[in-house]
Amino acid sequence: MSAEILTIGDELLRGEIVDSNKSFLSEKLLSIEVETRFHASVNDDPGDMRDAFLRAAERSPIVLVSGGLGPTRDDLTVEVLAATFGRELTQHEPSLRKIEAMFTRLGREMTPSNAKQALVPMGAEVLPNPVGTAPGCMLDVGRAVFFCMPGVPRELYRMMEEQVLPRVAVRLGGGRGVMRAALLRTFGVGESNLEDMLKDVGREPGVVLGFRTSFPDNFLRPVARAATLEEAEAKLARACAAIAEKLGPLVYTRGEETMEAVVGHMLAERGLTIATAESCTGGLIGARITAVPGSSRYYRGGVVAYANEAKRDLLGVPEALLREHGAVSGPVACAMAEGARSRLGADFALATTGISGPDGGTPEKPVGLVWIALASKDGVEAEQMVFPFDRERHRAITAQTALDWVRRALLGLPRVVPRYVRGKS
Amino acid sequence: MSAEILTIGDELLRGEIVDSNKSFLSEKLLSIEVETRFHASVNDDPGDMRDAFLRAAERSPIVLVSGGLGPTRDDLTVEVLAATFGRELTQHEPSLRKIEAMFTRLGREMTPSNAKQALVPMGAEVLPNPVGTAPGCMLDVGRAVFFCMPGVPRELYRMMEEQVLPRVAVRLGGGRGVMRAALLRTFGVGESNLEDMLKDVGREPGVVLGFRTSFPDNFLRPVARAATLEEAEAKLARACAAIAEKLGPLVYTRGEETMEAVVGHMLAERGLTIATAESCTGGLIGARITAVPGSSRYYRGGVVAYANEAKRDLLGVPEALLREHGAVSGPVACAMAEGARSRLGADFALATTGISGPDGGTPEKPVGLVWIALASKDGVEAEQMVFPFDRERHRAITAQTALDWVRRALLGLPRVVPRYVRGKS
Repeated sequence: MSAEILTIGDELLRGEIVDSNKSFLSEKLLSIEVETRFHASVNDDPGDMRDAFLRAAERSPIVLVSGGLGPTRDDLTVEVLAATFGRELTQHEPSLRKIEAMFTRLGREMTPSNAKQALVPMGAEVLPNPVGTAPGCMLDVGRAVFFCMPGVPRELYRMMEEQVLPRVAVRLGGGRGVMRAALLRTFGVGESNLEDMLKDVGREPGVVLGFRTSFPDNFLRPVARAATLEEAEAKLARACAAIAEKLGPLVYTRGEETMEAVVGHMLAERGLTIATAESCTGGLIGARITAVPGSSRYYRGGVVAYANEAKRDLLGVPEALLREHGAVSGPVACAMAEGARSRLGADFALATTGISGPDGGTPEKPVGLVWIALASKDGVEAEQMVFPFDRERHRAITAQTALDWVRRALLGLPRVVPRYVRGKS
Repeated sequence: MSAEILTIGDELLRGEIVDSNKSFLSEKLLSIEVETRFHASVNDDPGDMRDAFLRAAERSPIVLVSGGLGPTRDDLTVEVLAATFGRELTQHEPSLRKIEAMFTRLGREMTPSNAKQALVPMGAEVLPNPVGTAPGCMLDVGRAVFFCMPGVPRELYRMMEEQVLPRVAVRLGGGRGVMRAALLRTFGVGESNLEDMLKDVGREPGVVLGFRTSFPDNFLRPVARAATLEEAEAKLARACAAIAEKLGPLVYTRGEETMEAVVGHMLAERGLTIATAESCTGGLIGARITAVPGSSRYYRGGVVAYANEAKRDLLGVPEALLREHGAVSGPVACAMAEGARSRLGADFALATTGISGPDGGTPEKPVGLVWIALASKDGVEAEQMVFPFDRERHRAITAQTALDWVRRALLGLPRVVPRYVRGKS
C-alpha cells in the first residue's frame, strides 16, 4: 500500500516557506512501512485542488492532505474535497462548541468564518485537534481514503501521530508484506567508486540499494521487502553484511550518528581524551566535537593557531621549524599536535595546517594542500593530502578526515586518505 | 505563464531530507514574475517519472526538474525524459572531456557510471555546471520546456541563477514591467517585532516587503515593481531608506555577506586584529571567522578552553577566579578575553562561557545562560544572557551575538542583547 501527500497553500508555491510537513509525514508513514509514492502541492485554487484530489484518488489508496483548514476565505480544503466527491457539508457540533468555548474564554465574538472550521463532509470521521481550532477529518471515497490535517506543524505533528497513523495502520491489516530499511554512513570514498564497489550488492529480488551524498560523506540506504518481517529482516541483514564485507571500515556508523558523535562515544567508552590544534580548519573540528552533548567528558580543548605566533606561543612549535619548513608542512603539523597533546593533557591530539584557498597557494604548496597530524602516547604521525574543493568543502573534508583518523586509531586500523570525486548531482 | 517544479529522488519520498530546492526554485521564478502552479515529487522510478513528465508537459509550459543527474544506477532523469518524449541519448563531448579532465587531475580512473553523466537527449541544449560534474539540459518538447538541474543545492542554485532564469525570462518576452529587489540582513530582534517596527514600510503601491527567518537572523526582502527600471529602482531605494530609518544598525548588511564577513571586512579596513577564547561555542566563532577568505589578515587565532585547566593554562585565568565564581561567570569571561587578547597579541578578543545544554544546568545557572566578554585596548566588558534554545541554536546565537558586539564596537555603538520571540508557526 502506497501513499500520496498533498500540501495546499499559496505560500508553498511562492517559495516563501520550505515545506517540511511533507518529509515529516513521509517519515512517519515509513515508520509503519507505508511507502510514499507521490508528493504534490497546489495553490489555494479550487480547480487545481479538485484535479489534485481526483488524481490522488486514482493512483494512491492513502492520501494525506495538509493545509487549508483555517478560518480565512482562502482555506478551502474541506469544501473542495466534499464537492469533488459529491458530498454535502455538515456541521460537527462538538467542534463548533469547542470553537465557541475558545472565543468565550478569550472574551471575543465568534465570526461566521470561525464557524466554518466546524464543517466536515458528510460521512467523514472527525479527527480532534487538541492544540488548535480546526479539526481534521478522514474521508473514505472508495478508491482512496483522505486524511485532512492542519498545515501548522505543531497541530499537524500531533494529529498525525495520534489520529492518522493508527488509522492508516488499521487499514494496512496483515498479509501485504513488510519493509525494512537501514542507513549506513560512509566516509572516504566517492559515490561512483562506492557504486562500483557495491555493484553486486542489492541484486537480490526485493532489495534496493539507495545512494545519497551528504558532503563529504556518502550514505547508503538498503531497503528490503518480503512477505514476512523475518524474511525482510533476513534480506536486509544479508544486504548489510554484503556491504560490510565490501566496504569494511569505510562504513563509520549504522544510523543517524555523525562522525564526531561516533568518535566521541568511542573516546568516552574508553575513558580517553582529545585535544585539537587547528590552523586551516580554524576551530571547525573543535566546534564539531563540542556539538555533541556531553563532549566535555572527553574534549579538553584546543588552540586555533591561525597566525604563526600562535603556533609558536600557544603550542610551542619551534620558530626554526616554521622558518625551515613553513607553516604548512609535516614537521609543523607534528609539532602542533604534540604541543596540543602535552599542553592540554590529552590522550590524543589532532592538528591541521593547510591552504584552503581561494588564495595563498604556491607552485610547491598549491591551494588544496593540507597536513593532518595525530599525536598519541605512541608518538605522532602526519600525512599530506590535496583536496581539490572550494574553501568550505576543503575545511569540511579536512575536519572529517581528521576525525576519521581518530576513529581508525581507536579501532587499530591504518589511516586512509579519502578518495574523492565530485558528489552526485 | 505558469511553471511546475518536479523533484526526483527516493530520499525525498522517504522523508529523509526536507526538500528546500522547491521553495528556492519557486522564489526565483517569482522574482521574474513566473508563478509556480504545481510542485510534485516522485521516486527514482521510471514509470512514475514518466507519468510525472507527461502530466507536467500537459499542464505547465515551464517545467523545472531537479535531481537524478548523478552517476549511480538510481539516477535516471535524463534517460527517462528522453524516452518519454521519444528522443535518443547523445554524448555531449565537452561535458565528457570535463569529467575526464577532473579524473585526470585527481589521478584516478574514470568509470562508465561517470561517463553516463555526459549523456543528454538529442536536441537538448546543455546547461553547464561550473561546480559539479553533471551538466543540466533544456529540452523543448513542444507543449512545454523542461529544464533539468542537479539536486545538490549548490549546483542547483548556480545553474538556476545563471542558466535557467535567463532562458525562462527570454521565453516570457518583454513589456511586462520590471522588478527590483534587495536583501537586508538583520540581527537582534525577532520576526514579529520586526513586523511591528516596519508596519508602515512597504505600503507604497508596487512595493512588497517579505520577511524570512534564517536563525538567528531575520532577512527582509523589499521588492519593487514599476513600468521602468528607473521607477522600480527609485521605489526600492525609498523602501530601503524607510527600513534603514526604522531599524538603524539592526540591519548589519545589504546583500549576501555573513556577519563574520561584515566584521572581517571592517577589521581589515581598519588594520585591526581579533582573537577568540571559546568555551561553550567550542571553536564555532573561530570556524566562522576563518570561513571568510583572507581572514588571516585580521584573525590571530584562539583558544578553545573547554576544560577548566585549558582556561587556566592557555589563557591564564586565575584558579581562584574559577573556584570562586565558577567557569560560567562574568569574571571568568573577562579573564578569558583578556588572556586571549594578550597571549595572541590582538586588538580585540571575544570570550564565551555558558551552558548550552541539554544537561549541566543548576537553579542558579540554568541551561541557556551564557556570558560573552569583549576585550580591547579600552578594557574588558562582559554581559550575561539567557538564550532559551536547544544546544545547536544556543551556540549559533551566542556566536552571532559575540560577532555583532565587535561590529557595534567598531561602529562606536552600544552593544545590544538580542530580543527574541520564538518563531512564527
